[in-house]
Amino acid sequence: MAKDIFESSDTIRTAHPLRYAQSVTFDELLSLESGGILPSVTVAFETYGQLNEAGDNAILICHAISGDSHVARHNAEDEPGWWDILVGPGKPVDTNRFFVICPNLLGGCRGTTGPGSLNPATRKPYGPDFPTITIGDMVEVQRRLLDHLGIGQLIAVIGGSVGGHQTLTWATRHPDRLRGAVALATSPRLTSQALAFDVVGRNAIHRDPHFHGGQYYDQPQGPAVGLALARMIGHITYLSPEAMNLKFEADRLQPREVAMEFEKTFSVGSYLGYQGTKFVERFDANSYMTLSLAMDLFDLGGTPEQLAAGLHPAHCRWLVLSFSSDWLFPPSQSRDIVNALVRNNAAVSHCNIQSSCGHDAFLLPDDFDRYGEMIRAFIHNLVSASTGLGVEKEEPPGPTSIFHERRLDYDRIVELIPPGASVLDLGCGTGRLLARLKQEGRGRLVGIELDERKIISALKRNLDVIQADLNEGLRAFADKQFDCVVLSQTLPAVRDVAGVIAEMLRVGSTCIVSFPNLAFHKLRRILAEEGRAPRAYGWLRDKWYDTADIRFLSIADFEDFCREKGFHIQRRIALNTETGGEITEDANREADLAIFVLGTTPNAEGNPPIESVPT
Amino acid sequence: MAKDIFESSDTIRTAHPLRYAQSVTFDELLSLESGGILPSVTVAFETYGQLNEAGDNAILICHAISGDSHVARHNAEDEPGWWDILVGPGKPVDTNRFFVICPNLLGGCRGTTGPGSLNPATRKPYGPDFPTITIGDMVEVQRRLLDHLGIGQLIAVIGGSVGGHQTLTWATRHPDRLRGAVALATSPRLTSQALAFDVVGRNAIHRDPHFHGGQYYDQPQGPAVGLALARMIGHITYLSPEAMNLKFEADRLQPREVAMEFEKTFSVGSYLGYQGTKFVERFDANSYMTLSLAMDLFDLGGTPEQLAAGLHPAHCRWLVLSFSSDWLFPPSQSRDIVNALVRNNAAVSHCNIQSSCGHDAFLLPDDFDRYGEMIRAFIHNLVSASTGLGVEKEEPPGPTSIFHERRLDYDRIVELIPPGASVLDLGCGTGRLLARLKQEGRGRLVGIELDERKIISALKRNLDVIQADLNEGLRAFADKQFDCVVLSQTLPAVRDVAGVIAEMLRVGSTCIVSFPNLAFHKLRRILAEEGRAPRAYGWLRDKWYDTADIRFLSIADFEDFCREKGFHIQRRIALNTETGGEITEDANREADLAIFVLGTTPNAEGNPPIESVPT
Repeated sequence: MAKDIFESSDTIRTAHPLRYAQSVTFDELLSLESGGILPSVTVAFETYGQLNEAGDNAILICHAISGDSHVARHNAEDEPGWWDILVGPGKPVDTNRFFVICPNLLGGCRGTTGPGSLNPATRKPYGPDFPTITIGDMVEVQRRLLDHLGIGQLIAVIGGSVGGHQTLTWATRHPDRLRGAVALATSPRLTSQALAFDVVGRNAIHRDPHFHGGQYYDQPQGPAVGLALARMIGHITYLSPEAMNLKFEADRLQPREVAMEFEKTFSVGSYLGYQGTKFVERFDANSYMTLSLAMDLFDLGGTPEQLAAGLHPAHCRWLVLSFSSDWLFPPSQSRDIVNALVRNNAAVSHCNIQSSCGHDAFLLPDDFDRYGEMIRAFIHNLVSASTGLGVEKEEPPGPTSIFHERRLDYDRIVELIPPGASVLDLGCGTGRLLARLKQEGRGRLVGIELDERKIISALKRNLDVIQADLNEGLRAFADKQFDCVVLSQTLPAVRDVAGVIAEMLRVGSTCIVSFPNLAFHKLRRILAEEGRAPRAYGWLRDKWYDTADIRFLSIADFEDFCREKGFHIQRRIALNTETGGEITEDANREADLAIFVLGTTPNAEGNPPIESVPT
Repeated sequence: MAKDIFESSDTIRTAHPLRYAQSVTFDELLSLESGGILPSVTVAFETYGQLNEAGDNAILICHAISGDSHVARHNAEDEPGWWDILVGPGKPVDTNRFFVICPNLLGGCRGTTGPGSLNPATRKPYGPDFPTITIGDMVEVQRRLLDHLGIGQLIAVIGGSVGGHQTLTWATRHPDRLRGAVALATSPRLTSQALAFDVVGRNAIHRDPHFHGGQYYDQPQGPAVGLALARMIGHITYLSPEAMNLKFEADRLQPREVAMEFEKTFSVGSYLGYQGTKFVERFDANSYMTLSLAMDLFDLGGTPEQLAAGLHPAHCRWLVLSFSSDWLFPPSQSRDIVNALVRNNAAVSHCNIQSSCGHDAFLLPDDFDRYGEMIRAFIHNLVSASTGLGVEKEEPPGPTSIFHERRLDYDRIVELIPPGASVLDLGCGTGRLLARLKQEGRGRLVGIELDERKIISALKRNLDVIQADLNEGLRAFADKQFDCVVLSQTLPAVRDVAGVIAEMLRVGSTCIVSFPNLAFHKLRRILAEEGRAPRAYGWLRDKWYDTADIRFLSIADFEDFCREKGFHIQRRIALNTETGGEITEDANREADLAIFVLGTTPNAEGNPPIESVPT
């Protein structure tokens, strides 16, 4: 096997000393959301780069359940950090430009106050007396740290998994303290399945006879078996089934010889036993229980309405990333967050990264070529709000004209959209149309696109772009949320034409649809005289058996369809893209490209719908 | 919520007395595959219905890890059985017709010899001295029971999950002892992920301080916590994420008040704690370890080649069913079994039932309308090998002719297939063409279909039908496995036309493809004169925006395509379905339906490929 099976996103996390960690103690009382209090709190943290004089170049990184402040190496000799791929000089979170702060979590065991810390009231470790804490409490401690460091508004808060929960909490509790939020592999609250795994893990610790009611610090033995079991369960949930097969299938009955007291029959068993045993050496069971309960109690809303309300205070820009094989924080949950943000008219970009790495994907290099570039572009946009990174290598313009390569339809579509109008572009590609509308000044602009690479390009143009499949509808969007919804060039590739157009008319006040006209006289002639399926050398260049187009229609067909479905045609522009001219007479025969403006009512000027007399 | 959250497929499995269980003891030595021996074995079992004089109406049911012999009620007053929906008078496994036997597993704790049984050598329970057993050992004990009962050949062995492992073992170890095998929600071996959960469960039991090295029977306390934890993990894996959300999301923080010593913060936690606590009352921890290890050691092959070799001895008919939301024994693993059987030219039917019930689905009524009917038809076919149940209500014949309803193309396709030829029908629907070929005497006939209801109908016609999506290829099939592969009426709905036809030519010696001809003069006229996408009232009746067809082609287009791809046209039949006549002159204009016979070489008679002069 190419990879050592004992490698994991966590293997590097041995209990190395945090040589570069600083700490600060706040002696003011911390009132917790549970009603409990902590008389004083120490925060361990690490920083990278230089805070500028204005104090406005800072980025906060929030770690996940078993992480710590050591997000990245401080130099070549330093121990590896857990997110070295993301944070460092020239990296997407560029420490040459930004001041990066990563604090250890409240409740943890790597320097910040937690159950293993001394309780000043008893001069013994808190143990079971450590109060229940929430993600909100963790964020409150981080806020105190930022105040202490003299940081006003952050450029961004970034976090994955429970780090994503902190990011969501920052954006909603302290909306003025951040310009952007990057939430990876996270959720509005845990699924019942994810909760269930945590409950079993806590039960294993709690019912370990060496738990001693949580006051095991002065005992010869702590709940090592329970904590190891909890960690084993955790490890299974961090990996995808594919990743596990890749690691263990070839040698399933050849376990690694490891000194441990767990079952060694199977390779996967020796891996889990090893991970569990190592974890006990570096983590405190009470901290694990405290942090996992805080994660489980996090709840930004269980319904779309609750979630939209929960996210309502936020007014930063968002980048929400999920990973296709993550079953612990499944992509549908990131989608729920995105849908709620969309509903709130928040500026959000989203991609569900195709990955085989499961929940761990956000820590691993495998898919970093995509999610790393998205984060890089997004952060760049936060500091250079007017211009993006720029699309380095523009793809050749796709043909829109059926006979010509130039996108003649863009000129007309841009003209059709009034200044200030908000626009949703379905199948926006790299964002060429939206970028043009942005240059020329329009309202809110949002693109929908499936392709990951095109999403990166659209982000580089400083656009908000959301990954979605049109055939699944526009459920995320509210009625009449946009002035204009555009479906240009994409109609023939849509399976559920009536459904998509109905959704466009629900979401937009007007819709613009463009498509090539099958009944153009040169296309008719191909079938009539050559006896072959019509083609042309532009838009319709692909052959019948390999074109992405699956719907073939004429202007007359589309008008019949609109009548039948009750879609009102407000305007029709018929073009001959060979001559570049607009066709007004006998359009169904003389035009090769049609642009329709649709509405749910007859056109705005009160004119009757177009009655075409097609031939 | 409609369902009580404490309901589970397992809730009925309280430790009720098995009032109708019989038992038999075999005092001959049992040599186990692990090298161990058992000096004698007792088997507890229940039977339903009457064994006929010939001893040939018996069906064996194999239970899963926590099941027992009580598969069904014996009468209205009896305790519920775990598969009452399947087994009983008039049920798919009809106890009015069949003699049903369900034994408790070797290694279990419900009457059959297991770790809790007395070791005759020590007069104490076996405990840790109980040897490692395998699925093969379990089946060997079942074979002794059948011999004892005077049963020669079974009609079928039926089992789900680890019951499916037993079914696979029966078919491969004792191929002459069964006519049919029904394997539900099972696998050739566990995934690494499923193995991992089992390992953690066993670790929890093994490291419970009350395990006492397995000899806890005379101790005041056994490994109750460890067993409960193992059961909690198991329960999570039996449910789908959707099912868990449905059960627990609405009231996630309103746990049921249950007397137990596990965390009660969340509803899902109280459910798991309850299930774990109840399980300890009725199950022995050593049995759980023994059975789960037997399941984990089961391995019929990790590669397609190994699996085909492992299944090679079997020569029964097969029904392999998986469930779409089962992530413990995922559908891809059933598909692996099916592919291996297909490779072996075994008679196999397969469906992946759309279900939200997870691994438990095979025990639950939710999807029984489909999987129950499939089992009913399959078993009927085993006893009435020549005729099926019959399709009660034949669907109206789908149009094939573009102008007429009658399937004129079937007559011609049937003529094209020589007697004795084996046929694979892609998109076989309810199996009408295959049923006709069967009546008229052909070789091996196999259908491929996506729709569950149509698969039921095809099973009722006593056909072998496999659920598959053509666009994913015919990977399961070997080169030249069939004399003839048919794609009739389905071509226009295929996205990857070239890929599918290449696969057909790989798998079949010849291929038959039929489709409507877009260049038929009446269709040309519609575009040329009306300026609309061509339609007709038969096959082409749907409109451009809602037809299932996504490919439009003429005879000339298809011939161009075959030349380009190097597919040899061996014969072309062009029909005018209005007149019913065959067209020989100017077919691309005069025929509305084309049937092509393709091969990878020029036609069998050595004639040059047809050169059409399309107009």
